Amino acid sequence: MREFKRLTPYREALRLLLDDLSEVDEVEEIPLKEALGRVLAEDVASPIDSPPFDRSAVDGYALRAEDTFSAREYSPVELRVIDEIVAGEESKAKVESGTAVKLMTGSKMPEGANAVLMQEMAEREGDIIRVLRPVAPGQNVAFKGEDVKKGEIILGKGQVLRPQDLALLKGIGFKTVKVKRKPRVGIIVTGDELIEELNEEALKAGKILESNSVMLESLVRKYFGEPVFYGVFPDDEEKIQSTIEKAKTECDLVLVTGGSAFGEKDFAHKFVKLLFHGTTIKPGRPVGYGERVFIMSGYPVAVFAQFHLYVKHALAKLVGAKNYEVRVKATLAERIPSQLGRHEFVKVWYENGKARPIKKKGSGIISSLVESNGYIEIPEDSEGYLEGNVVIVVLY
Amino acid sequence: MREFKRLTPYREALRLLLDDLSEVDEVEEIPLKEALGRVLAEDVASPIDSPPFDRSAVDGYALRAEDTFSAREYSPVELRVIDEIVAGEESKAKVESGTAVKLMTGSKMPEGANAVLMQEMAEREGDIIRVLRPVAPGQNVAFKGEDVKKGEIILGKGQVLRPQDLALLKGIGFKTVKVKRKPRVGIIVTGDELIEELNEEALKAGKILESNSVMLESLVRKYFGEPVFYGVFPDDEEKIQSTIEKAKTECDLVLVTGGSAFGEKDFAHKFVKLLFHGTTIKPGRPVGYGERVFIMSGYPVAVFAQFHLYVKHALAKLVGAKNYEVRVKATLAERIPSQLGRHEFVKVWYENGKARPIKKKGSGIISSLVESNGYIEIPEDSEGYLEGNVVIVVLY
Repeated sequence: MREFKRLTPYREALRLLLDDLSEVDEVEEIPLKEALGRVLAEDVASPIDSPPFDRSAVDGYALRAEDTFSAREYSPVELRVIDEIVAGEESKAKVESGTAVKLMTGSKMPEGANAVLMQEMAEREGDIIRVLRPVAPGQNVAFKGEDVKKGEIILGKGQVLRPQDLALLKGIGFKTVKVKRKPRVGIIVTGDELIEELNEEALKAGKILESNSVMLESLVRKYFGEPVFYGVFPDDEEKIQSTIEKAKTECDLVLVTGGSAFGEKDFAHKFVKLLFHGTTIKPGRPVGYGERVFIMSGYPVAVFAQFHLYVKHALAKLVGAKNYEVRVKATLAERIPSQLGRHEFVKVWYENGKARPIKKKGSGIISSLVESNGYIEIPEDSEGYLEGNVVIVVLY
Repeated sequence: MREFKRLTPYREALRLLLDDLSEVDEVEEIPLKEALGRVLAEDVASPIDSPPFDRSAVDGYALRAEDTFSAREYSPVELRVIDEIVAGEESKAKVESGTAVKLMTGSKMPEGANAVLMQEMAEREGDIIRVLRPVAPGQNVAFKGEDVKKGEIILGKGQVLRPQDLALLKGIGFKTVKVKRKPRVGIIVTGDELIEELNEEALKAGKILESNSVMLESLVRKYFGEPVFYGVFPDDEEKIQSTIEKAKTECDLVLVTGGSAFGEKDFAHKFVKLLFHGTTIKPGRPVGYGERVFIMSGYPVAVFAQFHLYVKHALAKLVGAKNYEVRVKATLAERIPSQLGRHEFVKVWYENGKARPIKKKGSGIISSLVESNGYIEIPEDSEGYLEGNVVIVVLY
């Protein structure tokens, strides 16, 4: 059996990969209501000041702060209410010394007023209020442009849109938003040993239930892509080659699982000119990439690691996504030994500031993925971490 | 203006709410490929052992470990290869002392063999291999049921399904999964001051661009629900009342924004018998709930806080979701003062183990939500936290 002549270091392979890919050009203008989780295609500047004018931040009385400076509970200041408005209305009154206008949160500040007294701080009798405490100039006023200024970049290109981002866009007048087209990601699953229906006899004869398809499809969806599933293929060179060719013309990226090593039946690497084949990652060493095609392992845990270490970043590059990972600091609950020369992907359970490595090993052990909620990376030059070390966990 | 006679403490209100809601009964059986993010309706037990038999964890030679105990590089042990199989095939050969079977990762262990020598550890010549190092019994063997045992609960009711969960299900023979029906969540937006088209004149007259609809719709989607949007209504008592009635018959939960306080135009609370109205949360105090209807604020930041502190947990209860929050430990980068008697929702930016409070205040300041990626809760009995305190951040 041929072995890899050289394992490309993880970072070097990742750079080769990312340098080889270009951001998707196409932009889609879609309704805000459909934009959750999509990636902003360009910087967005606000077309308006928000608030568009100085307005009250509370329900209360707009007044001249100077009038209240001497107000005390035992010696209240009396002001005359000259107008009362409700939300969405505007007072035309002019506040002069000794007067006030009753208004609502969000109401435009009437001319002459420079502060608002909270409703519950005033005693009212007819059109007279008694102010019990002084109010400072500017108090309870939301100033023009205080939330967002006209022309200000409020959301940057590459932002993965969240509910609050969509609310901000709607609140300054947008009804649609320009996002990147979802990259189409072809998925080709190969292997003579794979079956798709539960069949105990076949399992006893050494067959394996195929599970990479649904894992990759949902990972691709989670990370901005549109999966295109081409099916499960036995190790038939010609069929696999023609399917890869077809997928390359139809997709932005193609993932092929199985056949990534150099076994007798591992031939996927013959069909693409690879930029790297065999990297220092563990698990998942026999990963290859070239011509927008990933040759991945057949073992689910290795595929999962290869996806997070390479494919996820490739998808983010394709759409220009910025904030696509949740990275948290954690204290290791147990030591993790690591092999020098390998970039290890270690599954952990993160909870309450602590990360506990999942001990189950073996690339076939899918339950180890289910029992984890994140991973730690241990680079080639480290022999691992000790209990109590502070590490970065990427949550999934 | 009437004020709240009593603010219900946050925890008490939350308990009243959750006790009032029952889990959705209906279960949908859907294809695995559509199940990402859905909530498992029942415990799932594995119908098979996985692996279904003892199998090799590497490409190599199945042999009797005892034969290799004396193997050294300067004094190799020679074994005769009596069979060779590829992935998905089964060897019928019986391994006896002095013999070995070549197999692939995942191959069933042939009778008589109790360990596997990694391919690269053997020197081969014709049908003879030279073993250079001893192998321990059980080495490189994945034992029957090691990943998952037949009958074992592999995923619990309430699990929010992730890519790896779907892969595990597929890998043990499932093609569909039973998930809870998505709760239908009615959204009714009220307020005379709201406009839906950017109109500078209207804004100058005190109108406000409506933004709660898209925020709530996407939050509901994010947390397991199916939003049903009923529209934006001016403060017309009759129309709002009839819409709430209609939504109650069509939905599992109804969210009404605007009109939650006791202003002249705040009447939504008249149409439902509320279990609580006015709670200690800040922002968002004037929240009310009863008869499966939430009366929420009109101000986006308050609505956002009310959603996370109440509605999110209500939705999780409706579907029985367990792992629906990402909670991380963080060190405060700045002190946060908090008012005694208020359960404060403090927006923060979490990064690299540190949480920095977002200073912008005011319930109209949507940009403060955009600049944050999580929140801290400060309960009623706390005056806040100091710089350097360790706190829990819920990421969003």
